[in-house]
Amino acid sequence: MPSVGILVIGNEILSGKVVDTNSPYFCQELRELGATVERIVTIADEIDIISKEVRELSEAYDFVFTSGGIGPTHDDLTIRGVAAAFGLEIERSDGIADRLRRAAKREPNQAELKMAEIPAGAQLLDAGDLWFPLIVVKNVYIYPGIPELLRKKFESARDRFRGEPFVLKKVYVRRRESEIAPALNDLLREFPDLLLGSYPKLLKSSFHVELTLESRQAAYVESALESLLKRLPTEAIFKVE
Amino acid sequence: MPSVGILVIGNEILSGKVVDTNSPYFCQELRELGATVERIVTIADEIDIISKEVRELSEAYDFVFTSGGIGPTHDDLTIRGVAAAFGLEIERSDGIADRLRRAAKREPNQAELKMAEIPAGAQLLDAGDLWFPLIVVKNVYIYPGIPELLRKKFESARDRFRGEPFVLKKVYVRRRESEIAPALNDLLREFPDLLLGSYPKLLKSSFHVELTLESRQAAYVESALESLLKRLPTEAIFKVE
Repeated sequence: MPSVGILVIGNEILSGKVVDTNSPYFCQELRELGATVERIVTIADEIDIISKEVRELSEAYDFVFTSGGIGPTHDDLTIRGVAAAFGLEIERSDGIADRLRRAAKREPNQAELKMAEIPAGAQLLDAGDLWFPLIVVKNVYIYPGIPELLRKKFESARDRFRGEPFVLKKVYVRRRESEIAPALNDLLREFPDLLLGSYPKLLKSSFHVELTLESRQAAYVESALESLLKRLPTEAIFKVE
Repeated sequence: MPSVGILVIGNEILSGKVVDTNSPYFCQELRELGATVERIVTIADEIDIISKEVRELSEAYDFVFTSGGIGPTHDDLTIRGVAAAFGLEIERSDGIADRLRRAAKREPNQAELKMAEIPAGAQLLDAGDLWFPLIVVKNVYIYPGIPELLRKKFESARDRFRGEPFVLKKVYVRRRESEIAPALNDLLREFPDLLLGSYPKLLKSSFHVELTLESRQAAYVESALESLLKRLPTEAIFKVE
């Protein structure tokens, strides 16, 4: 199953000016595809930090997604950081320069041409109707910070990240977590490979805890669900879905 | 100025079931206080991973905030992870056990008593009207994942994280980023200590780019703002705030 590490690059996130909606989007989409996000790291716009993180994530996971820091201004350092991670030179991509020229219908200026600089040997993937391609260096996919663009690029590449999806069942329980904890522990002894989540809710009248049961084997989840329902008093179950 | 590393602990975030609102909250509040969030790491509920990250963040920054993974169930491993990070034993806190007893008005069960287990020598800080205290181990503040509780605990401790706040000016510009990039580079040569952010917006009719100018020195920001406004054509400025 593909594993993914996400690197969110941007002072605007750390300084609280912008809320990162890109990593939640990736997490939801990748889960649906059956890939597993193992780690998300959010860092400042600094080449050395970007480079160190990219190298570590690239070694640890099948895919790395970066978000942010590509563009024409001084604080757009992701391309240089990714190149440094793998000891690659930066080169001007004639393909991107051409696309820039066609999109702007004139000769691009210096700042625009910065967007044609890529790590040597990078792959360029065309992304739907966008003029700017998705840049891929080894297993690192370089996404822009702007959510609309990031989503279009991800959509155009999503089949590359497909694994075997999880089957998910949810049980909403009218008991406190501490009351059902023994039943959950027993359940996990019977089904050690079950991914079992327990999420208490505050200020809800209809249920106290949301339980999630997951596995890539549908039959395993069904058996675990059946076992769980037997372990809890009927009146404690608010809903199963 | 205090530096902060944030550790978000929870499979529910990585698997896309829950969107983390805690780290954005911390980022906004800490910025207002003048503390600097340097890094956010989101990881799974696994003791070894928690322990490694806590140790690294604790060495690198003045404060570490963890979010999530404290509670009575099998997937609540933060306390054990933090203890392991510093080679500390786990001990039963009589203070917390007493509070549990008072809150429940009966003898706590085994699962509830798990919540009274803390790393040896941890500090307990009373948190407003909550029965459960904020647990602090060295420079690590252990917050619950439930946003309402996390916020109350942060509020009760917030004066500990105070630094010298940043002064922020925003300039909304009716030009594309690539057109104003040279002016921004010149500005940074004149004001090398300015924190300058440039954020392109899509699908907005009134402006293309939001610029943020920041420093802890109000006079420095004012001078930089004045210089920036001279560098851009008057008709390019949509708004200054």
